[in-house]
Amino acid sequence: MSRTEISEFGEFGLIHHLTKNIELQNVSSIIGVGDDAAVIDHFGKQTAITTDLLIEGVHFDLMYTPLRHLGYKSVVVNLSDIYAMNAIPTQITMSIATSNRFSVEALDEFYEGVYAACEKYGVDLIGGDTAASQKGFIISVTALGEVNPDKIVRRSTAGIGDLICCSGDLGASYLGLLFLEREKKIYLESPGVQPDLEQESYVIGRLLKPEARKDIVEFFEEKQIIPTSMMDISDGLSSELLHICKASECGCVIYEEKIPVSEETRKAAYKFEIDPTACALSGGEDYELLFTLRQEDYEKITLQEKISVIGYITEAGKGETIITKAGNAHPITAQGWNAFKNKI
Amino acid sequence: MSRTEISEFGEFGLIHHLTKNIELQNVSSIIGVGDDAAVIDHFGKQTAITTDLLIEGVHFDLMYTPLRHLGYKSVVVNLSDIYAMNAIPTQITMSIATSNRFSVEALDEFYEGVYAACEKYGVDLIGGDTAASQKGFIISVTALGEVNPDKIVRRSTAGIGDLICCSGDLGASYLGLLFLEREKKIYLESPGVQPDLEQESYVIGRLLKPEARKDIVEFFEEKQIIPTSMMDISDGLSSELLHICKASECGCVIYEEKIPVSEETRKAAYKFEIDPTACALSGGEDYELLFTLRQEDYEKITLQEKISVIGYITEAGKGETIITKAGNAHPITAQGWNAFKNKI
Repeated sequence: MSRTEISEFGEFGLIHHLTKNIELQNVSSIIGVGDDAAVIDHFGKQTAITTDLLIEGVHFDLMYTPLRHLGYKSVVVNLSDIYAMNAIPTQITMSIATSNRFSVEALDEFYEGVYAACEKYGVDLIGGDTAASQKGFIISVTALGEVNPDKIVRRSTAGIGDLICCSGDLGASYLGLLFLEREKKIYLESPGVQPDLEQESYVIGRLLKPEARKDIVEFFEEKQIIPTSMMDISDGLSSELLHICKASECGCVIYEEKIPVSEETRKAAYKFEIDPTACALSGGEDYELLFTLRQEDYEKITLQEKISVIGYITEAGKGETIITKAGNAHPITAQGWNAFKNKI
Repeated sequence: MSRTEISEFGEFGLIHHLTKNIELQNVSSIIGVGDDAAVIDHFGKQTAITTDLLIEGVHFDLMYTPLRHLGYKSVVVNLSDIYAMNAIPTQITMSIATSNRFSVEALDEFYEGVYAACEKYGVDLIGGDTAASQKGFIISVTALGEVNPDKIVRRSTAGIGDLICCSGDLGASYLGLLFLEREKKIYLESPGVQPDLEQESYVIGRLLKPEARKDIVEFFEEKQIIPTSMMDISDGLSSELLHICKASECGCVIYEEKIPVSEETRKAAYKFEIDPTACALSGGEDYELLFTLRQEDYEKITLQEKISVIGYITEAGKGETIITKAGNAHPITAQGWNAFKNKI
């Protein structure tokens, strides 16, 4: 494979190279890459905006993360935040900083993933910045989305008696990480050993190439459901539940047996001799949606197998409780993916 | 001074600490920090968006950059891009990544500067991200602004015969950098020596605490001027002129004697035995506005001392030319602030 040095392009050449094939998809994208700022238009809608910073060695490990997947995921994790407002993502900006360890071909691979995500989710890349980094690969993404003012769903508006629901299944991504970290360790100790991760493709795929729940937000629209509160599950179910309860000034009860965990995740958890429920509660990086619904909306979701009802909202004084499979009540504690606690 | 470890707060505690005093100033800011995404509203206007990534050791040196100034500048450089679209900035997001070398007090100082800039320019901080970094301080800012669709000014719309103008004066920031780099070197060699930079406060101030040209965009509004093209001068006059000519498919002629250079900059340049014009052409980080005007708008700016007319736009085939004080014609070449050429 050929290697083109980034310095051969210069900054403007590099930006041009990385963005030359963009075709804007949204009518609201008036001006894209190539001026001081991009310009977007809104026809009576409101704009949701979110931003994430991803740092090599903290948020991802290039030893086992293909650049294409990394580009894809960098976009998806931001879109997930937009969907969590019940909004439709429309534009992103993408900034990267890299050292000369990267070739232009490597960046192309990363951007292939970025563009694949943009295409899949119908968003336009409209701007960004490239810079040199002293160490490691740094990614900053900002995503914008549109939402009708009467459809925005916040974290702070859950009501007593509301059903607590989540999409998809939880805990897989964390187990994917455990497998890859274990294989990395083995590889570093004995580089000749080929890892066999085929059996774990589900949990590893969930870590390396997560999807945002566009389909769930579309389902809400189709069924005319407006959740009473919503957020995406990036730090683990416990942490997000506590956020909703704090913001909404309420308590909650959830049932361990109702928490959706896939068969693949269960098997993977048993290999590491850890509790699959703990992975769902504290694992993080699932990018599923956690939301609350009025009880009268229950019928609208009963046939929707992608949605699980896991509990209900209680009064503030009642605390946050999980009822285990054995029938015991325990307080829910946040042991989420805390970058500062774990990594600094 | 007390030192609070960032780890004492945890990520969410830190975000709360850094953002707890925000009061939203713009009616378009519907939801700020604290949900998955912020929400903004637009009343028939369009949104300009821009983003910048600032990396310690590449874009700034903490040996001589006070954190408060750095916070201020991080905001201002993005607002400058919004003004360069003839738009009014309304919101920013601010993401930072830092190692445990930083205390909470240090971050507070940085955010003091961020909030000072937000207040001065009337923008709301509506979101962001905090993360751990493996090395150095990393800042990512995204700015949004509002503009009437018929007032957006792009780079690509300069017309033949248009006057080329710029605001303020150029080259100072680069000389500020030369002084600070020189003093850093002296300090590292003999730490006892106290630097005497008082005489250079203008050029150093231009580097460390630049302002965005809000006043110029307000002046355009007041005088009903819409430039035919515009961009901000962040990489040096030459580089920006070439951008406008390339995007607008035209050439240009500028006159060395018309390029605004302050007396302080001239004196500073002579101390380093370099040509002040070279600093203006290639220095960068001035954050002035470069724009083109129809000739019939000339009368509207004659009394505006903050604006200099430095040349005019020519046909595409004529190239880009600077006429020196001695009357010689030279092609303009870009030797701007190219992060990739210089730093990788």
